[in-house]
Amino acid sequence: MKLSRETGSERYEEMKEKLFSAVIADALDGCGYRDQILRHDIRPLYPGAVVVGRALTVLSVDVYEIPDEPYKLELEAVDALKPGDVLVAQTNGTTRSSLWGELLSTAAEVRGARGAVIDGFTRDSQAIADMGFPLFVRGIAPYDSKGRSDVIAYNTPIDCGGVKVFPGDLVFGDFDGVVVVPRAAEEEVLKAAFEKAAEEKEVKQALQNGMSATAAFEKYGIL
Amino acid sequence: MKLSRETGSERYEEMKEKLFSAVIADALDGCGYRDQILRHDIRPLYPGAVVVGRALTVLSVDVYEIPDEPYKLELEAVDALKPGDVLVAQTNGTTRSSLWGELLSTAAEVRGARGAVIDGFTRDSQAIADMGFPLFVRGIAPYDSKGRSDVIAYNTPIDCGGVKVFPGDLVFGDFDGVVVVPRAAEEEVLKAAFEKAAEEKEVKQALQNGMSATAAFEKYGIL
Amino acid sequence: MKLSRETGSERYEEMKEKLFSAVIADALDGCGYRDQILRHDIRPLYPGAVVVGRALTVLSVDVYEIPDEPYKLELEAVDALKPGDVLVAQTNGTTRSSLWGELLSTAAEVRGARGAVIDGFTRDSQAIADMGFPLFVRGIAPYDSKGRSDVIAYNTPIDCGGVKVFPGDLVFGDFDGVVVVPRAAEEEVLKAAFEKAAEEKEVKQALQNGMSATAAFEKYGIL
Amino acid sequence: MKLSRETGSERYEEMKEKLFSAVIADALDGCGYRDQILRHDIRPLYPGAVVVGRALTVLSVDVYEIPDEPYKLELEAVDALKPGDVLVAQTNGTTRSSLWGELLSTAAEVRGARGAVIDGFTRDSQAIADMGFPLFVRGIAPYDSKGRSDVIAYNTPIDCGGVKVFPGDLVFGDFDGVVVVPRAAEEEVLKAAFEKAAEEKEVKQALQNGMSATAAFEKYGIL
Amino acid sequence: MKLSRETGSERYEEMKEKLFSAVIADALDGCGYRDQILRHDIRPLYPGAVVVGRALTVLSVDVYEIPDEPYKLELEAVDALKPGDVLVAQTNGTTRSSLWGELLSTAAEVRGARGAVIDGFTRDSQAIADMGFPLFVRGIAPYDSKGRSDVIAYNTPIDCGGVKVFPGDLVFGDFDGVVVVPRAAEEEVLKAAFEKAAEEKEVKQALQNGMSATAAFEKYGIL
Amino acid sequence: MKLSRETGSERYEEMKEKLFSAVIADALDGCGYRDQILRHDIRPLYPGAVVVGRALTVLSVDVYEIPDEPYKLELEAVDALKPGDVLVAQTNGTTRSSLWGELLSTAAEVRGARGAVIDGFTRDSQAIADMGFPLFVRGIAPYDSKGRSDVIAYNTPIDCGGVKVFPGDLVFGDFDGVVVVPRAAEEEVLKAAFEKAAEEKEVKQALQNGMSATAAFEKYGIL
Repeated sequence: MKLSRETGSERYEEMKEKLFSAVIADALDGCGYRDQILRHDIRPLYPGAVVVGRALTVLSVDVYEIPDEPYKLELEAVDALKPGDVLVAQTNGTTRSSLWGELLSTAAEVRGARGAVIDGFTRDSQAIADMGFPLFVRGIAPYDSKGRSDVIAYNTPIDCGGVKVFPGDLVFGDFDGVVVVPRAAEEEVLKAAFEKAAEEKEVKQALQNGMSATAAFEKYGIL
Repeated sequence: MKLSRETGSERYEEMKEKLFSAVIADALDGCGYRDQILRHDIRPLYPGAVVVGRALTVLSVDVYEIPDEPYKLELEAVDALKPGDVLVAQTNGTTRSSLWGELLSTAAEVRGARGAVIDGFTRDSQAIADMGFPLFVRGIAPYDSKGRSDVIAYNTPIDCGGVKVFPGDLVFGDFDGVVVVPRAAEEEVLKAAFEKAAEEKEVKQALQNGMSATAAFEKYGIL
Repeated sequence: MKLSRETGSERYEEMKEKLFSAVIADALDGCGYRDQILRHDIRPLYPGAVVVGRALTVLSVDVYEIPDEPYKLELEAVDALKPGDVLVAQTNGTTRSSLWGELLSTAAEVRGARGAVIDGFTRDSQAIADMGFPLFVRGIAPYDSKGRSDVIAYNTPIDCGGVKVFPGDLVFGDFDGVVVVPRAAEEEVLKAAFEKAAEEKEVKQALQNGMSATAAFEKYGIL
Repeated sequence: MKLSRETGSERYEEMKEKLFSAVIADALDGCGYRDQILRHDIRPLYPGAVVVGRALTVLSVDVYEIPDEPYKLELEAVDALKPGDVLVAQTNGTTRSSLWGELLSTAAEVRGARGAVIDGFTRDSQAIADMGFPLFVRGIAPYDSKGRSDVIAYNTPIDCGGVKVFPGDLVFGDFDGVVVVPRAAEEEVLKAAFEKAAEEKEVKQALQNGMSATAAFEKYGIL
Repeated sequence: MKLSRETGSERYEEMKEKLFSAVIADALDGCGYRDQILRHDIRPLYPGAVVVGRALTVLSVDVYEIPDEPYKLELEAVDALKPGDVLVAQTNGTTRSSLWGELLSTAAEVRGARGAVIDGFTRDSQAIADMGFPLFVRGIAPYDSKGRSDVIAYNTPIDCGGVKVFPGDLVFGDFDGVVVVPRAAEEEVLKAAFEKAAEEKEVKQALQNGMSATAAFEKYGIL
Repeated sequence: MKLSRETGSERYEEMKEKLFSAVIADALDGCGYRDQILRHDIRPLYPGAVVVGRALTVLSVDVYEIPDEPYKLELEAVDALKPGDVLVAQTNGTTRSSLWGELLSTAAEVRGARGAVIDGFTRDSQAIADMGFPLFVRGIAPYDSKGRSDVIAYNTPIDCGGVKVFPGDLVFGDFDGVVVVPRAAEEEVLKAAFEKAAEEKEVKQALQNGMSATAAFEKYGIL
């Protein structure tokens, strides 16, 4: 169940195929990690977007002057992305700047990044959706970030959507939202998630056959 | 114009075909019921979702410990759904729990429920949309409700989206939003709605023929 | 680069084809107009909606009684629309009334209006999307405005989405959001926007060829 | 229990002395009027402020240009105040204009007005508090209203703090907040309020003597 | 440093005299408990209010009908208060009901409770302030809770102001706000707090003597 | 009317005595500066607080790790304060950290600073009020800023309470709120403010003598 960079890609594809954010959230709950779901207003840019990979974290803040070297750390962070990475950014609540866009998505994709999760805004939203780049954002607006916000650190612990995210944490997002699996719990959580995903199909079948919800929960113990 | 459970289904289909939430809202206004529209942030899960039926009400609240019998009243409520029912739930503003999901949608559908309106969150959103189950929600997030929220009553008067809803009230939702028709006004409101729906087509035709908006409103008295 | 009513249509089509809101926003920034982007919660009603044209402004306010002449100034404003116009309305934050709907969209379209931008709600949302009328709104709800809100002025300076809009200002909206180009800066801004739009393709190509984001920004100076 | 303008003053003083907003709220509840409490963010300007009298209603809206006759209807409304009146104003959520100030307080006081309740902002707050003019507001800011907001009607039904207020309704405000007594229920509500106010003292005495809260509620039926 | 019920009172008085919420917050930070400060909008009812004691927790939720036994668990909870207790309540965000009031304050005080912390509203605010009962609340409004909210559990883990609170946790509130000290960390945190409180006086003296802030922090290591 | 550092103190005292924020706001309006009032939720810490002086600006942002040199730029900024300065800080909306406190107030006061305006939180609120240090803040909470927020620049242009503030701008705050006078308009605005302050007394006198508000505004042209 170890996810090395070498074998990650295959494993990530299996996760995309068999898992979903809700079942991982249940597995996290079961292992005692009950606060690992990003705030609900961080949404996929397009319905089929699914992201799975390891967090490269970015911290962006609002500024009110164009810095001496605009975009400097943001570009460094994007250039540091490796295959299997997911850029996870906190913009500290800004509604007057967009951190992300088409060119950064392009650069990220070329480096093998599997998507991005931004507690903030993007622009070039249509183009990014057309690329099929899995992007999760709090909003959309055509702002340039220059002189509005600036990245002050990357690969540092951040809060994203109310969840503490450390560099390398496993991130999974789909249409329901985004969950973060802490490193220490990874094996245990994924094992439980794969198991529960299988069981849910059985419960659904029983309900379709007319079993009452009460009886189904009594029998299977899951909902 | 009476909607018995027996004849309801046919009647509901006619309402789905000929009416829409805005024209029912206008009819409610005309009958003096001016506060029957649910808050605008309760949205359909997918564009074509239309719900019409009678409310089975549910009241859910936030809790911070796993109850002795998790899901108990929620499962009872779902099992109590009858053909033509719409589950209408208030979750009292929670943003840390999802009341609804795919398995409950399945159980509801099997019992003949025509949809659900949740002043709260759902999960399994993609699967529910794929089922074509008409669901109206305030948000989407992958939370299990266990130990986060709990149903404390059903078939009790509730507030949903700022509107008082009584068990058995007629509920209609489409892409514009959701309206609730109080029992006492049902016949009068539906009659007025069917009439206005017919007239609006005429006005639209006149406007397309170049009549000014001012002249059209003077002539037809509707907008 | 002048946009007369006579030649506007052709020019607007060129803008729709080659420009987008983000590149116009960048051009505005470059010309020193850094506050011309409408608040991010004013969104297109449907994904492909693009609006470009000149503002006919409308100011609507909340009322609590049906006025003597309901809709009067609103109908006048719609009837005053000319080819190439975009109705731009402020409803002062209301969440209990919808200013816009299908019949007004029809009347506007017949007069040659190219769309509408409402810092407020619409109803008849599905029908308007089906018409392909480019509408940008803060929300959707089935309210009639009669006795809930009333237009008190049009073709007056307004604030829309946090931006001061004057009658005749150039408005451009797409999936990223809406920008307003002040009259005085129009030629300069459009010239810069067309230029940057061309350059961005080159940068994207370079990134796709593997150039680092840092190197690309150093070479091209844009992001 | 009738409150004529002639005898109002004496009666109002008795109400100030013996009643308080919470007991009137309870009496309203008991008479079936459960939505007569203004939103909690409408607060007294200073701790000892108590207002009781009849509503002269004012409706103010946001504008973005200086009107031809600034302040016109606002000044008319203030000049129309009579002894025993309370100016009750709705400003439709504005946070960029202050409706009220020291000069208007002075003019109101001279005319015999007993205070003002503004679902909006005031300025000159220190001076008004020093005057001892009972003012209830949603906020404080040094804005002039000229070109920011404008009164469009007075002595018209309004919503204030979420409560429908009609001209002449009885208004009572103290440190707990503001309640509005509908005309039709006035006698019944005041009678019940005076009675409950007397009983509460007895319950308090019992509790101070060590009776359990459960026993006290069982015995007296009030809390 | 143990706080038994027997010796608690004396110890609490020492804490009131020598400690304050900010220094306890710093001590909590130093011990690795960085999320123990209640949300800033929970404020003391009057400037001099200071509360210190052990939490008796209460969970209240919104309801829309008068329950069969109104106030039942709330009265039980108040009757269960013992000397040194602080009632700590969560009302799940309600803005339409007040949990607390003068009679409950009276009953609590008689039982030896040292105050109350309500993530919700109170009424009878002036009377409670006059009693000198240390009350911390999110708002003030004259609502009766009957048929608006209902206590569904007490002495159960709750969230209050964003902090998990367990029955018996040590609570300290003053004009800066409220902090909760988890049981396991109590001795360590209090020891550190008493020490830092003493040091801060020395730093203040140094600053008053003109030492630069930079130098003072370098020398004393605290701020 | 020039305010040099040398003569500032005397001039500031004259401003404190004769001016107030509302009359300066009116003067700013009259000179065409209509957006110079800080957002209304930035409030004085205590009723009599009045601040007047020149801005030393500070920009603080949220962080999620303790920096290598905590407080570094914040301490530098405070040590850079000179007589007549007002520290004006933006904390970018944080609700989980307090920028200011008693020790910093002490250091600022010793350096001759005339107060501080923080678009953010303070702690040690009671002690600061007892010092009589004029502090204007968005909230109060006992947080240490270490590892929660960090100053990234000072004496740089910032936004504070929605107003662009440049180092050296004149700041005036009282119980109504805070206004910022841009350097270029300083003489003109102060001249107008002193004049209007004198006139208002005359109007108040006229109103007290019974002149109608309408007549008073007609005669004096101010409100």
